[in-house]
Amino acid sequence: MLLSKLFIPITKDLPAEAKIKSHQLMLRTGMIRQSSAGIYSWLPLGFKVMKKIEQIVREEQNNIGAQEMLMPTIQSADIWKESGRYDDYGEEMLRISDRQKREMLYGPTNEEQITEIFRSSVKSYKLLPQIFYHIQWKFRDELRPRFGVMRCREFYMKDAYSFDLNENDAVSSYNKMFCAYLKTFQRLGLKSIPMKADTGPIGGDLSHEFVILADTGESKIFADKRIFDVPIDKYKNNEASLKKMRDDFSKFYAVTDDKFKSEDFDKNVKKGDQIQTKGIEVGHIFYFGDKYSKAMNCSVDSKDGKKTFVKMGSYGIGVSRLVAAIIEAKYLNEKMKWPKSVSPFDVVIIPAINKNDNSNLEKANSIYEELKIKGIDVLLDDVEENISNKFKKHDLLGIPYQIIIGSKATKDQFEFKEIDKDSQMLDLNKIIKLLKN
Amino acid sequence: MLLSKLFIPITKDLPAEAKIKSHQLMLRTGMIRQSSAGIYSWLPLGFKVMKKIEQIVREEQNNIGAQEMLMPTIQSADIWKESGRYDDYGEEMLRISDRQKREMLYGPTNEEQITEIFRSSVKSYKLLPQIFYHIQWKFRDELRPRFGVMRCREFYMKDAYSFDLNENDAVSSYNKMFCAYLKTFQRLGLKSIPMKADTGPIGGDLSHEFVILADTGESKIFADKRIFDVPIDKYKNNEASLKKMRDDFSKFYAVTDDKFKSEDFDKNVKKGDQIQTKGIEVGHIFYFGDKYSKAMNCSVDSKDGKKTFVKMGSYGIGVSRLVAAIIEAKYLNEKMKWPKSVSPFDVVIIPAINKNDNSNLEKANSIYEELKIKGIDVLLDDVEENISNKFKKHDLLGIPYQIIIGSKATKDQFEFKEIDKDSQMLDLNKIIKLLKN
Repeated sequence: MLLSKLFIPITKDLPAEAKIKSHQLMLRTGMIRQSSAGIYSWLPLGFKVMKKIEQIVREEQNNIGAQEMLMPTIQSADIWKESGRYDDYGEEMLRISDRQKREMLYGPTNEEQITEIFRSSVKSYKLLPQIFYHIQWKFRDELRPRFGVMRCREFYMKDAYSFDLNENDAVSSYNKMFCAYLKTFQRLGLKSIPMKADTGPIGGDLSHEFVILADTGESKIFADKRIFDVPIDKYKNNEASLKKMRDDFSKFYAVTDDKFKSEDFDKNVKKGDQIQTKGIEVGHIFYFGDKYSKAMNCSVDSKDGKKTFVKMGSYGIGVSRLVAAIIEAKYLNEKMKWPKSVSPFDVVIIPAINKNDNSNLEKANSIYEELKIKGIDVLLDDVEENISNKFKKHDLLGIPYQIIIGSKATKDQFEFKEIDKDSQMLDLNKIIKLLKN
Repeated sequence: MLLSKLFIPITKDLPAEAKIKSHQLMLRTGMIRQSSAGIYSWLPLGFKVMKKIEQIVREEQNNIGAQEMLMPTIQSADIWKESGRYDDYGEEMLRISDRQKREMLYGPTNEEQITEIFRSSVKSYKLLPQIFYHIQWKFRDELRPRFGVMRCREFYMKDAYSFDLNENDAVSSYNKMFCAYLKTFQRLGLKSIPMKADTGPIGGDLSHEFVILADTGESKIFADKRIFDVPIDKYKNNEASLKKMRDDFSKFYAVTDDKFKSEDFDKNVKKGDQIQTKGIEVGHIFYFGDKYSKAMNCSVDSKDGKKTFVKMGSYGIGVSRLVAAIIEAKYLNEKMKWPKSVSPFDVVIIPAINKNDNSNLEKANSIYEELKIKGIDVLLDDVEENISNKFKKHDLLGIPYQIIIGSKATKDQFEFKEIDKDSQMLDLNKIIKLLKN
């Protein structure tokens, strides 16, 4: 892609409500544009990052055997009345009346809808265990939407639902998801901590939230730093190993400020292992047994022919929120560096363009064509602009690798720079190898 | 995927309103489930097909340089008041009042929203021409939703918008899209006809609808059969060639019944070339000049510094509707055959399973593992069921290739069948080669 053609309409005058750095950066690099309060359009750059996050989330769901489907955004109020949550949800639920005066709503979550699908089609234990997920827009009519896509009204979320015959199996499904979440955040280049959590309006008695570390996070975190040494990749995809994984994590103290007690911290964690930092919640998982299946009469025949209410869990990841969360974690000292796995481009070519001399741009162009052929998603900064302004701009765009075509470049050797590291003079084959790796 | 684990909840008792064959088939094969009137959940099988269609649509948009973004589903009424369409749209628009009593709506289309984005960020002709698209859920509050996803309320649509400095450039963008649409439908395995159309509530003076042939289509079509010989792949991606493409198509008579006059038909088409068939509209493109840009004050500075209202077009493809349209076109004599490009699986392995003899299932399993390693998306019908029932089921599921493990199979040779063709005995390498091709 040529930068001159890429639609990245930069908001120069930041609105007063853009208080956190992800909100500011997303406006300054044209990733999003506010459409109305708490509702955003995702412009090409932001859209690309969000889609890459979505794909990683999807792959890790598929890896544990979850099946993808897609439930609609608009739901009937009837099923929410069945579960008893229609009134509970309060004003955050966007309630809609259609032309026939039917009570509808824009789904803030999908426990009721998936339970309705399941109860109407599954009658026997034989299809269990089963996990379904979808990645769909949700709406919560926040009283004061703020912080950009971090706390907006229309947001993109992966929500999964597990169905099991008994509590033991259900906890096993829960552990699978626990593991999938850790792997997902790891692939997104984030350090995450699973923390015991309250279940809130979803209900149930087992819950974890996944918090990623970011200096500017919304919640304070107190933890044993050894929690980062639990070897996520070492566990196998079987019941015993996944149980051990959760146990291993549970051994280490990790709480947010609402649960923090300094005497507990000191009792459980050696001074040298204590860390105090900030974080952002990006995922939340729940086991709530038969809370919904009982209320909505969702049962299967067990092996001995008895009707049994299925045991359910639900599992959310905020996909649109993660875009902002990654920025909060990775935007340091006025420099953004996207993790390779979700960067809007693999690499950017930055030629120093001189009005009287086209040679750098020509060199850049031929490298650009070569990289495209090799399947590398490359951005060419073909804008006529002072090179130091270019560097400032790319500090914000945050593409992790740069090929700089300036005075240092020779016929075959180009300056290759990874953000935050020293640049090297390399030939194109070497560069391609590094990018492909 | 093992069929015993795949979530395809089949609706056995078809509802009375399932009158057309795509609606029936989608319910009978568990592709969708109605959530409320005209609103559907996409279950795993239907979801897979829709995602494959979406990806083909996306690739052909990218091929003409259109940039993907994503606008939200919920829009402010304000921009619709600016364009004057807020009142025009009538009851099909789902109007919503949020908790702050702001007037909102669930977008049925996005001309206003994209114009708002464009006017607030583009000031110069230099970024033109530009085409943006998004693939997003829309809502039209149909009075009588029917025919399943063919005429539903919440639907998935690709809509693109072009911005040009003058009419000549705008028509050139229009022609690019004209070409992209023909290629899209070709890749979906469909025969499509572009037809001059009225512009309706979108406005403007140039418009084509794209109709695909299906015996059960909603509209009658009268055409010169030579229109199918126009060599879509022969045109180049430049202004002159694309203009010629549209001209070449325009030479041939093709109208729907509302414009049909038998004397015109006879005058313009030789008897031997006349075809009369049925079709389904799956795409619609419009050029409407400055209808929206003028109303919403969306202008750029042209080269000579004069403010000029941008010239716009809009271009829709019904992605969710296409799933049903493909079924209407391809489901014949009680047999479905998905085009290879959008089939939910590449191939299905059908072993004859005998309670006392596991050997066919074992063979099937080892082929299944081998195909998965080769990157083939394979379904294994591991259900214990009479083989003739299995065949009936797969006539509906419509996966175009079958590997049948029954009495004919030898140690190395398996019965390989493409639906509607004779089966052959082939070894696995040969089968893999055919599937990969």
